Order: sequence, then C-alpha cells, then structure tokens
Amino acid sequence: MSKVFASLGMSLDGFIAGPNSRPDNPLGDGGMRIHEWAVGVESWRARQGIDGGQTNQDDDIVQENFSRAGAYIMGRHMFAEGEVGWPDPPPFRAPVFVLTHIPRQPWVRQGGTTFTFVTEGVDSALAQARQAAGDKDVQISGGADTVRQFIDAGLLDELQIHLAPVVLGSGVRLFDGVSPALELVPTRVVDSAQVTHLTYRVASFQVTAGDLTSLHDTAAS
Amino acid sequence: MSKVFASLGMSLDGFIAGPNSRPDNPLGDGGMRIHEWAVGVESWRARQGIDGGQTNQDDDIVQENFSRAGAYIMGRHMFAEGEVGWPDPPPFRAPVFVLTHIPRQPWVRQGGTTFTFVTEGVDSALAQARQAAGDKDVQISGGADTVRQFIDAGLLDELQIHLAPVVLGSGVRLFDGVSPALELVPTRVVDSAQVTHLTYRVASFQVTAGDLTSLHDTAAS
Repeated sequence: MSKVFASLGMSLDGFIAGPNSRPDNPLGDGGMRIHEWAVGVESWRARQGIDGGQTNQDDDIVQENFSRAGAYIMGRHMFAEGEVGWPDPPPFRAPVFVLTHIPRQPWVRQGGTTFTFVTEGVDSALAQARQAAGDKDVQISGGADTVRQFIDAGLLDELQIHLAPVVLGSGVRLFDGVSPALELVPTRVVDSAQVTHLTYRVASFQVTAGDLTSLHDTAAS
Repeated sequence: MSKVFASLGMSLDGFIAGPNSRPDNPLGDGGMRIHEWAVGVESWRARQGIDGGQTNQDDDIVQENFSRAGAYIMGRHMFAEGEVGWPDPPPFRAPVFVLTHIPRQPWVRQGGTTFTFVTEGVDSALAQARQAAGDKDVQISGGADTVRQFIDAGLLDELQIHLAPVVLGSGVRLFDGVSPALELVPTRVVDSAQVTHLTYRVASFQVTAGDLTSLHDTAAS
C-alpha cells in the first residue's frame, strides 16, 4: 500500500514557523530561515515558476518528494495561506484535499492541481487522497495541527524533518501536544551544508498511555 | 588553539532532560530515553565501571569525545546530580571545573578526576580549563544553563547534538532563551539506528540584535 508521509522544515529548537504566522506572513517572523535551503534549489523553484537554482543533494530530496506524492492533504490554515500566495499552476500538480468545516466546490487550477474541500475529517480525506494517489504516496502537507491529527490517529507512516541549523526562539512547534508514546525509527539521514534531512518510520503509536497495543506498524504493511 | 565544545543528547522536541529533574532523578522522567544509545556502548560503560557493551558508530563518537576532552566545565546542578551518582573513579578522568557560588576545596577522586570549584564565573573557569587541557579540547558538560552561558558569552566553538528519535513533551529545553542570532553551520552528521549525531560549528553570535559584528568565528582561529 502506498505510504502516508509528512515532510516539514524545522528549526533546531523545534519550530516549523516563527511567531506571528498569518496569511500574509505564512512562515512567521524569521520562519524563512528554516526554508532557505529549499528556496535555492531548482526543483522547488521550478514548481513556483521561478527559473534557476541549484541541483544538489537538497534538490534531490525535493524532487523525490514531488515525484512520490500522488495526492496531498492540508489543513484549512495552510490552504488559506497558500490560496493568496501560490502561483497558478500551484506547486502540487496533483489533487489536494483540504480539511475544513466549510463546504466549498472544488477549485480547479492549472497543471493538475485541484483543491477538494473535505468536511468529514481525516479518515475521509485520507480515503479520497489514497484513491487519487493510486500507487503513489499521500503527503500530509501541514500545518503542524494537521500533521499531529494524523499522528494521533495512527495514520502517519513516515515523518521527514528537514532540520535547519537555526534557532527561532518562538513560533509554532511541530511536536507540541504530541504524546511521548510516539515511537520513531531513523531510516535515512541526508546531510548537506545547509540542512539535515531526517527520515523516520513511525513504528508505533499508543493512543492511551496504558494501551500497549501497537496500532500502527508500517513494517508489517 | 584547542576548541570549546558541548555534546548533549536531545529529544526531537528539543529536551535534554524530562520533567522532575533533581539529584535523585537527574535525567528527569523519561529522560533516559534520550541516552539509551550511549548506555549500550562499550566506551561509555567502561567509564562507568560497567563491563560489556557494543562497539559501533555510536561507540566511536563517545570514544572520540573522551579522547579529545582534556578538561570539563559543568554547572553546580549537574555536579550536585553527579556527586551522588558517579562511581569512583568518575567517568571524566580529567580535571573538572564546577561553576558555583559556594567556595569549596578541590575534591580529588581516583583516575585523574579532580573537581575544582570556580566562583569567579565562566571566563575564569574557561581560563583554568584551557590551562589544564593543554593541547586538548575543553568540554562544557552541561546542564543547559551552563551551555547557554557559554553560547551567550560567544565562547562556544562547537555544539554536538545527539538527536534521539523520541518525543518527551516536557522537561528542560536546550535552546530556551538562546537568541535567534546564534548562527550554526553543520560540519558533520553521523547516523546510526538509534540516534543521529549532529555537529555544528558556532559561526557567529550577536549579543545584541543590532550588532552585526561577528564576535566569534572559529574558522578564523
């Protein structure tokens, strides 16, 4: 079965966005420092409609994720931030399922990106995304709340963290509220001069502290 | 000149100890999970007077740090925790300088470890440690407060983080209160099945946000 993965830039002190994050400042104050490595590489720039950029290990990582993702799931805040900022065609080039409480007709953009609004929760979004992705993987784009929802539900197979050598001091923490019961196994590390790409398999996740049952083990899937 | 380095285990969510850290529970609740990789390797065990253990990449890292450290500096809390827990001979086998406000005669232990109590602050501790270390490096052992004091003073050359694939949720954060002006450059990554060893050069550190002067650049030393 195809995998469900998330791929997030994070500062050394655990933030995926700086303080004062809002639609006109989606990464928050200083948050761009987490993503500087990505902004410079060819495959990221191409998806944003920007020429040039480096082809290096960091570029390979971005390209690999674009290639494997057959559908995306994101939260309504991330969508609201992107709606005003993404170019047309948007960078996804694949179906995107937006978790929201407000029904809305699908929004068809150029290049294969259609935003479908899902009001029935994570299970429904995942079922639709899996269907759309076919053999490819489903990427949980973010933000932190949405990734945590998938972790909490035992639905995340793989977590990629692109660890930037910066300290933000405040902002949005990826792991705030994630249970210490989350068990991760390092499966790959790729390091470059600007960032360290960490990949973890989600080995098991106990919903309650007393429940020793492994709800989710991708090694068995 | 010899380097000043720190080497700390950290959880993915940024903690170097769990909650309720105190002398009889120095790592805090769940904090041992950060250090499981070290407890299993031969060189760490040997310094604790425990037989056996694995010889692997993780062991190489521990051994390398023991070899390069000619003197140690630690805070009074770490000393208080260790005083009741370290064996004799203690694991350092080198002079240890303890930052404290309470004068005390040096405490001589077996195997080359003498604890010297420094009441004149970090500059004095570092001068004494450099003198004692000779050509070897000076390791800032911890805790987090002490490492931050050296970062803030622009005295840390290298920061090693042994990133454990665990989430603690609460406890003592390494980077709490560290200024976003801290600039780190990744210089080495060693990954094993249990932990990712990250080494950063401290490139520069601005004491005030408006001060663009690089106070400290180990590349030039």
